[in-house]
Amino acid sequence: MEKLEMIYEGKAKRVYRTDSEDYLVIEYKDDATAFDGKKRGVIQNKGVLNNKISARFFQLLEQNDIETHFVKLLSDREMLVKAVKIIPIEVIVRNIAAGSLSKRLGLQEGTILKRTVLEFSYKNDELGDPMINHYHALAMELASEDELKQIEQIALKVNEVLKKFLAEKNIVLVDFKLEFGRHHDRILLADEISPDTCRFWDASTKEKLDKDRFRRDLGNVEEAYWEIYRRVCG
Amino acid sequence: MEKLEMIYEGKAKRVYRTDSEDYLVIEYKDDATAFDGKKRGVIQNKGVLNNKISARFFQLLEQNDIETHFVKLLSDREMLVKAVKIIPIEVIVRNIAAGSLSKRLGLQEGTILKRTVLEFSYKNDELGDPMINHYHALAMELASEDELKQIEQIALKVNEVLKKFLAEKNIVLVDFKLEFGRHHDRILLADEISPDTCRFWDASTKEKLDKDRFRRDLGNVEEAYWEIYRRVCG
Ligand SMILES: Nc1ncnc2c1ncn2[C@@H]1O[C@H](COP(=O)(O)OP(=O)(O)O)[C@@H](O)[C@H]1O
Ligand SMILES: Nc1ncnc2c1ncn2[C@@H]1O[C@H](COP(=O)(O)OP(=O)(O)O)[C@@H](O)[C@H]1O
Ligand SMILES: [Mg+2]
Ligand SMILES: [Mg+2]
Repeated sequence: MEKLEMIYEGKAKRVYRTDSEDYLVIEYKDDATAFDGKKRGVIQNKGVLNNKISARFFQLLEQNDIETHFVKLLSDREMLVKAVKIIPIEVIVRNIAAGSLSKRLGLQEGTILKRTVLEFSYKNDELGDPMINHYHALAMELASEDELKQIEQIALKVNEVLKKFLAEKNIVLVDFKLEFGRHHDRILLADEISPDTCRFWDASTKEKLDKDRFRRDLGNVEEAYWEIYRRVCG
Repeated sequence: MEKLEMIYEGKAKRVYRTDSEDYLVIEYKDDATAFDGKKRGVIQNKGVLNNKISARFFQLLEQNDIETHFVKLLSDREMLVKAVKIIPIEVIVRNIAAGSLSKRLGLQEGTILKRTVLEFSYKNDELGDPMINHYHALAMELASEDELKQIEQIALKVNEVLKKFLAEKNIVLVDFKLEFGRHHDRILLADEISPDTCRFWDASTKEKLDKDRFRRDLGNVEEAYWEIYRRVCG
């Protein structure tokens, strides 16, 4: 597979065409943004670590019969993936109240949710990724009813697989964001799964090992990404 | 039934105990608030008009086999209702994009939605009634899964009945908010249905005939409530 020109540069990754319509190369950057791009910075080696952490998670999910876009690692910062048409819905899965959920619903950060909470948001930077529900998704024709059901089921299964795997590494999976896309007639899990898109807490100390260290200026940001890399890929 | 002491004073109504545990008296006030109580005012005769408009809608819904809290009108500003334990979820039904939906999703006000949109918000003034979904409602134990399903079904039926009735009065039902409560083992439609809680547009001129005239300082506020009263109760 040959890597051709860049077709999209996002906040955390670059996407390149290949000589096959069915495949893309994703390159992970060190750039970090938060609060709808209002906060910007660089986390040294983040691209390398997130590339490898994501690869490990995608492999794990594939082993558990979840179809993902991941094909293989190409280099320190690059992975080969199946090209999908991204469904513009971010799927957020929450086990413990944190971040925007805590604030919006007045639940103290760390509150264990009595049921797994799934949220959809409309992937639209200009609007600030507003929360939506099934009815909004259908009215805006972002996905079909059947696709929404599939996406929910897959998201809940991803949660079960990741939670179990991470528990063995002494990591609590607080919440995470997924993106899905259409590849021929299948829905694939796409994008990334990394400390940029998940909240990971050390199970013993409850120390944050994710992008919240950057968002909230907690220090030791790069160290946290390394720690997740060691536990997940080690 | 004897009206006893006031047990709750809200932004638009007062609630009184009666000599039966099963019944309450609701008194409609002229007070108007908007934007989480940041804007305040008085709309002359609103209490009288909303009392009668609500009564008419509840009667119509009962005739269509929807169980409501409404028992009878007691006076110009008062109705007798069945006492319910309010489920702290506001159910919003939308046929046309307007207000917060337009803003959040970038849909021009007046856009006809391809599907009826139903939204839940957590009835909590301090938090500003944040939007929630089924998962949040279940995690916070606001209602059971079966109750949520019932509430959705009733809300969609209310929409069909009101839309048809109002169309005959040359009124477009843009959107509205409902509240439900538990009365013994039944879910009843409660609270009010009025220009305070619905968006009504004249079908020909698209003129707003509801509380948006107050929220947006459009003038002729009292006249709009009278116009709805005349068309709905006339
Ligand atoms: N398999 C894939 N096929 C096509 N696009 C993808 C795939 N996986 C992820 N993407 C998209 O590529 C972009 C990745 O770059 P990112 O920096 O995360 O962008 P953004 O700033 O839009 O979040 C995202 O828009 C994501 O939706
Ligand atoms: N049948 C009922 N039984 C008990 N409470 C009710 C009933 N119908 C409405 N309510 C509640 O009574 C209050 C009505 O007053 P309102 O001015 O609308 O209050 P609020 O400012 O809380 O919206 C609301 O809190 C509403 O939920
Ligand atoms: Mg992204
Ligand atoms: Mg009210």
